[in-house]
Amino acid sequence: MAKEPTIQVIPLGGLGEIGKNMTAIRYGEHIILIDCGLAFPGEEMMGIDIVLPDYTYLVENRDKVQAVLLTHGHEDHIGGLPYFLKQINVPVYGSRLALGLVDRKLKEHHMDGQSTLLPVKPRDKVEIGPFKVEFIRVSHSIPDAMALAIHTPLGTVVHTGDFKIDHTPVDGDVIDLHKFASLGEQEVLVMLSDSTNAEREGYTLSERLVGRSFEQYFLEAKERIIIASFASNIHRLQQAILTAHKYERYVAVAGRSMVNVLAVASELGYLHIPEGMLIDLDEVDRLPKNQVVILTTGSQGEPMSALTRMAHGDHRQVEVMPGDTVIISATPIPGNEKLVSRIINQLFKLGAKVIYEGSSDIHVSGHPSQEELKLMLNLLRPKYFIPVHGEYRMLKKHAELAQQLGIPGENIFIGEIGQVFTFTRRSGRLAGRVPAGRVLVDGLGVGDVGNIVLRDRKEMAQEGILIVVVTMDKQTHQVLAGPDIVSRGFVYVRESEALMEEARRKVNAALDKCTGQGNCGWAYIKQEIKGALGKFLYEKTRRKPMIMPIIMEVDKKTN
Amino acid sequence: MAKEPTIQVIPLGGLGEIGKNMTAIRYGEHIILIDCGLAFPGEEMMGIDIVLPDYTYLVENRDKVQAVLLTHGHEDHIGGLPYFLKQINVPVYGSRLALGLVDRKLKEHHMDGQSTLLPVKPRDKVEIGPFKVEFIRVSHSIPDAMALAIHTPLGTVVHTGDFKIDHTPVDGDVIDLHKFASLGEQEVLVMLSDSTNAEREGYTLSERLVGRSFEQYFLEAKERIIIASFASNIHRLQQAILTAHKYERYVAVAGRSMVNVLAVASELGYLHIPEGMLIDLDEVDRLPKNQVVILTTGSQGEPMSALTRMAHGDHRQVEVMPGDTVIISATPIPGNEKLVSRIINQLFKLGAKVIYEGSSDIHVSGHPSQEELKLMLNLLRPKYFIPVHGEYRMLKKHAELAQQLGIPGENIFIGEIGQVFTFTRRSGRLAGRVPAGRVLVDGLGVGDVGNIVLRDRKEMAQEGILIVVVTMDKQTHQVLAGPDIVSRGFVYVRESEALMEEARRKVNAALDKCTGQGNCGWAYIKQEIKGALGKFLYEKTRRKPMIMPIIMEVDKKTN
Repeated sequence: MAKEPTIQVIPLGGLGEIGKNMTAIRYGEHIILIDCGLAFPGEEMMGIDIVLPDYTYLVENRDKVQAVLLTHGHEDHIGGLPYFLKQINVPVYGSRLALGLVDRKLKEHHMDGQSTLLPVKPRDKVEIGPFKVEFIRVSHSIPDAMALAIHTPLGTVVHTGDFKIDHTPVDGDVIDLHKFASLGEQEVLVMLSDSTNAEREGYTLSERLVGRSFEQYFLEAKERIIIASFASNIHRLQQAILTAHKYERYVAVAGRSMVNVLAVASELGYLHIPEGMLIDLDEVDRLPKNQVVILTTGSQGEPMSALTRMAHGDHRQVEVMPGDTVIISATPIPGNEKLVSRIINQLFKLGAKVIYEGSSDIHVSGHPSQEELKLMLNLLRPKYFIPVHGEYRMLKKHAELAQQLGIPGENIFIGEIGQVFTFTRRSGRLAGRVPAGRVLVDGLGVGDVGNIVLRDRKEMAQEGILIVVVTMDKQTHQVLAGPDIVSRGFVYVRESEALMEEARRKVNAALDKCTGQGNCGWAYIKQEIKGALGKFLYEKTRRKPMIMPIIMEVDKKTN
Repeated sequence: MAKEPTIQVIPLGGLGEIGKNMTAIRYGEHIILIDCGLAFPGEEMMGIDIVLPDYTYLVENRDKVQAVLLTHGHEDHIGGLPYFLKQINVPVYGSRLALGLVDRKLKEHHMDGQSTLLPVKPRDKVEIGPFKVEFIRVSHSIPDAMALAIHTPLGTVVHTGDFKIDHTPVDGDVIDLHKFASLGEQEVLVMLSDSTNAEREGYTLSERLVGRSFEQYFLEAKERIIIASFASNIHRLQQAILTAHKYERYVAVAGRSMVNVLAVASELGYLHIPEGMLIDLDEVDRLPKNQVVILTTGSQGEPMSALTRMAHGDHRQVEVMPGDTVIISATPIPGNEKLVSRIINQLFKLGAKVIYEGSSDIHVSGHPSQEELKLMLNLLRPKYFIPVHGEYRMLKKHAELAQQLGIPGENIFIGEIGQVFTFTRRSGRLAGRVPAGRVLVDGLGVGDVGNIVLRDRKEMAQEGILIVVVTMDKQTHQVLAGPDIVSRGFVYVRESEALMEEARRKVNAALDKCTGQGNCGWAYIKQEIKGALGKFLYEKTRRKPMIMPIIMEVDKKTN
C-alpha cells in the first residue's frame, strides 16, 4: 500500500515562547522554512548573547531544504539566518527591507555575497518545488510585513506572520484583506496565526495615533526632544521625522542599530528624510535647543544603549538636561520593566520631562488584538488552526477565540516546538516529534554553553566559589604546599580572615585522614575536602559556595 | 548665640526606592523612628537574601534613640526589626497585628521576650520624650494600618504611612478623615506621604470589589478553587473565606507564610474563620472537588512558593488538574512579571482555568491614586511636604500634584535617603547628610557581602571562571607541577579539550619567560598568565572569563 501523501507543519521555534520564530513546512522530500529568528536570553541564561532555535532536524534533512521565506525583518524572524545559512545555504525570499537588513547582518558575519537573497513584493507568487507561495501584505511595526499562502498539492497553508489590521497605515499600504477573503472563499486547509496579543480585547490602535501624540509633544516642547524607539519601527521614525520637519527641527541619530536601520531604510526608499534635515550628533550642541530632535535606541533600557548612557551621564555626545523632553516610545518587553523604570528615574533626576508608557499614547502595539484575530479567522475560515507566536497562555486564548467562531476544538492544535503536525486533504493530527530546543550563542561559541555551564554560572552567581589547592607528593601523599584557599563572590576576604583560617584547619583535618599514607585516591581526598568544608561553611554562614578542590601532584623522585 | 532648636527628618530608607522604609525624626537629643523595613534584592544583587537600610547613623546615636513606631505590619516596614533590635533594643509601638507579626519574626531569630512591644490603637496618644505621637487609622492592604501625627515643640509632623482611602473597607473601620481634617485645621508643619501610586489617575478601588469578583468566580467554578494572594492581605483572605462559607466549601491553607499569618491573624481576632471550615491540606483529596478552596502563597511566582510548586507538579499535597480554577489575586511587583507569567503558562498547561491580572478585577492596590493623594494633601494643608515611599519618578509626580494644590515649590522636598531635612517653626531646608545605603544579608552574614563580592559574582555569572594552578620551586622558580587549568561556567570542557590544551601552552609560554631564573615575582608571573590567557581566550571565544592564577610554592630544600 502506498503511503498517503501528507503536509507536515513543524514549528522549530516561537511556539510556547516569544522569539526565535521558525517553522518548517514539509511535503514529501521538500521542505521550506518560514522565518529564521533569534531570541534574547532570559535572565536565567547568564552571560548568553542570543538564543537560536535548534534546527538539527533541518541539518539532518539538509538535502530537502529548498528555501527560507521571511515574513518580515524583525530580529526574532531573521536573526538566526547568518548561523543557519552557514550550515544550509539556501535561497532566502523576503521583502526588500527584510533582505536589506539580512544583507547587513551577513556582512557583519563576513558572509556577504555568499547567499542568494530574492526580493519579493506583496501579491508576488513563487514556485519552490511542489509549493506555490503567495506573499500577502499585512500591517506590522515594520514596513512590508507579509503573510504567506503556501499552496500544496493537498491544500493551502496560510501563515499570517506578525500582523495587525491598521486601516490607516502610515505608508498608505493597507493590509490585503481582499486576498485573505479570496483565500477563505476558496479553501484554507491550515492556518497559523499570531497570538502575541490574544489576551487583549478589542482592536489594536493605528500607528497614526503615535504621530498625533508626537505632534502634541512637539507643540509643547520648548527645547530639545529625544525620542527612543525600536530602530525597526520605520513608520514611527518617519512620523517623528515629518513632525520634526513641520516644527523646523533638525534630526540627529544616536545608537548603532538606529544608525544602521535608518541607513538601510532610507537607501531602499522606505524612509523619506527631507534634504538637509539629518545632522551629525556632534552638531547638536551648536544648534539652538528648539531646533533639535534626537532619535535614539534604548527604549528597552538596554544597558549599553545610547539612551541608557545618556541617562547615566556617560554618553559621549549627548548630555540630558533640564528643558529636554524625552519620549520613550515603546512598552517594556516583559522582563525589561525594571531596566526601563531605572532609566525613567535617571532622566527625571537630570531634570528632563519624560513621556513614557501609561502617561500617554506614545506607543501602539504591532500585533492584533482579539477583534482582529477574529476577523482574520473569519476571513480565512481554515479547516485546521494552529495558534503560533506566543506563550502557552496566549495560544490557549487564541484557541478559545477560534472555537467561539465555530472551528471545532479537535481541529485546533496547541502545540510545542518539535511537534510534527501532519495533514492530509481531510485529516489533521499530531504525528511524532523532531529534535527542538534552544542553542545558546555566547561570544563566538554556538552551542558550547549548555545546561551544565549555565548551572555552574548560576551557582557561582548565587553563592560564590571557594578554591582549595594542595600540592602533594605523588608517592607518599605528603602535603608539600598548601592548602591554599581562595574565594570569589563569597565573602569579602579582609573581613573574614578568621573564617578562612578556620576553614583551612578543616581542610587540614580532612587531609590528615589521608596524607602520609598514600592509600587515599585523589577523588576520595577531594570528596573529603568538599564535605568537611561545605558543612563547616554552611554552619557558619548558611551559604553553600561552590567548592573546588584542586590537587597538584609532584613526583619528588623525578624532580 | 544659642543654637535655634530644630526638627530633623532623616529618611534612611524608602525614598527614591521601593522597600526598606525607615525614617528618623530627631528633636534635640531625642530620636524616634518610623518603621524598620527590609527590601527584597534586585536581580543585580545576586545571591542576596534580603536588604536592610544602613542605620549607622542610629548606631552612632544609639543613646538618643527612644522608640520605633510601626505604621503597619508589612515586611518593608517591619522586616528589619530583628536585625535592628539586636543592636539597639528600644520599645516598639504598633498595632496588635503588626506586633504579632514582629513577635513571630523575633521568635524565628531566637529573640523572643527580649524586646518591649507596646500595642497601640487608632486615636491612641503616647508621649515619648519631647514627642507626642497620635496614631490615626488609615486603609491599606493589611488591617490596622496607621498614620502618625508627631507633635513636637516646634510643630506637627504627619506621616501618612502606606494608605488608601477605602470608603467601604471590609472590616468597616473607615480611614479617620476627621482626625486628618482636625490636624489640618490646626497646623501641620511637615507632611510625609505615600507616593507608590502617584502616577495613577483617579481613585484606587475598594477592597470590596475583589470580594465581588470572588463571588462571581465561586459561582462559575464547578470544581476546586485555588486562590493565591499575599498572606498579609487579611481582608482579602477574609472575603475568600466568607465566600467559601457561603458556597459551602472548606478552606485549606498552603505555604509557610500563609499558614503563619493566618495563625497570627485569627489568634488576634483579625480574621474570622467559621467553626469547622478550616481543613488540613492532606484532607483536600478526600473531599468532593466542589467543596474545596485552597489559599496559597506564590502570587508573585516566587520560585520556592507553594503555587510555584503546584504549577510545576512538585507540591507534595496539591496536584493541579483540569477543572481547577486558580485565581492569582495580585499584580506582579515590577521585576516579577516573568516569574508570574511562567506560572500562569504552567497552570494553563495543567488544564486549570487561570484568572489573573488583566483578565479581571481580582486585585486592587493598597496605595492611593492621585485623587486620594490630593484629598489627603488638602485635608492636611502642610507647610512643608516630603513625598516618600516611591522611586524618584513617583516622588516627582507626587510633588507636582502638591504644587498644583498650591504648596509652593520651595516648600516641597524631593529627597534621597541620608539627607537631613531640618525644620524650625517657619523654615525648612536641606542641611547635611548622614550615612545611608543598603546592607546586604546573605545567609547569616549581615553586611559581609559588598560591592566587590557582588561584582565578582556578576563577572562569574556572565563569563565563568578559569583557574590556573602551578606549583613552583620556591628558590629556582622551576615548575614542579602544572599548569593545571580548570574552568567553571566557561565552556563545556569535554567539547573544548583542544581549546584548553592550547590555553595550557599559552600559560607555559608565559611561564617560560620567568621560570628557572628566579627573577620574577609571583605577582608578575600571575599578571603574565592573566594577560596571555585573557588575550588568547578573547580571540578564540570573544569571552572574558575571570582568570585566577594560583601559584603554589614548594621549598625543595626543606621538603
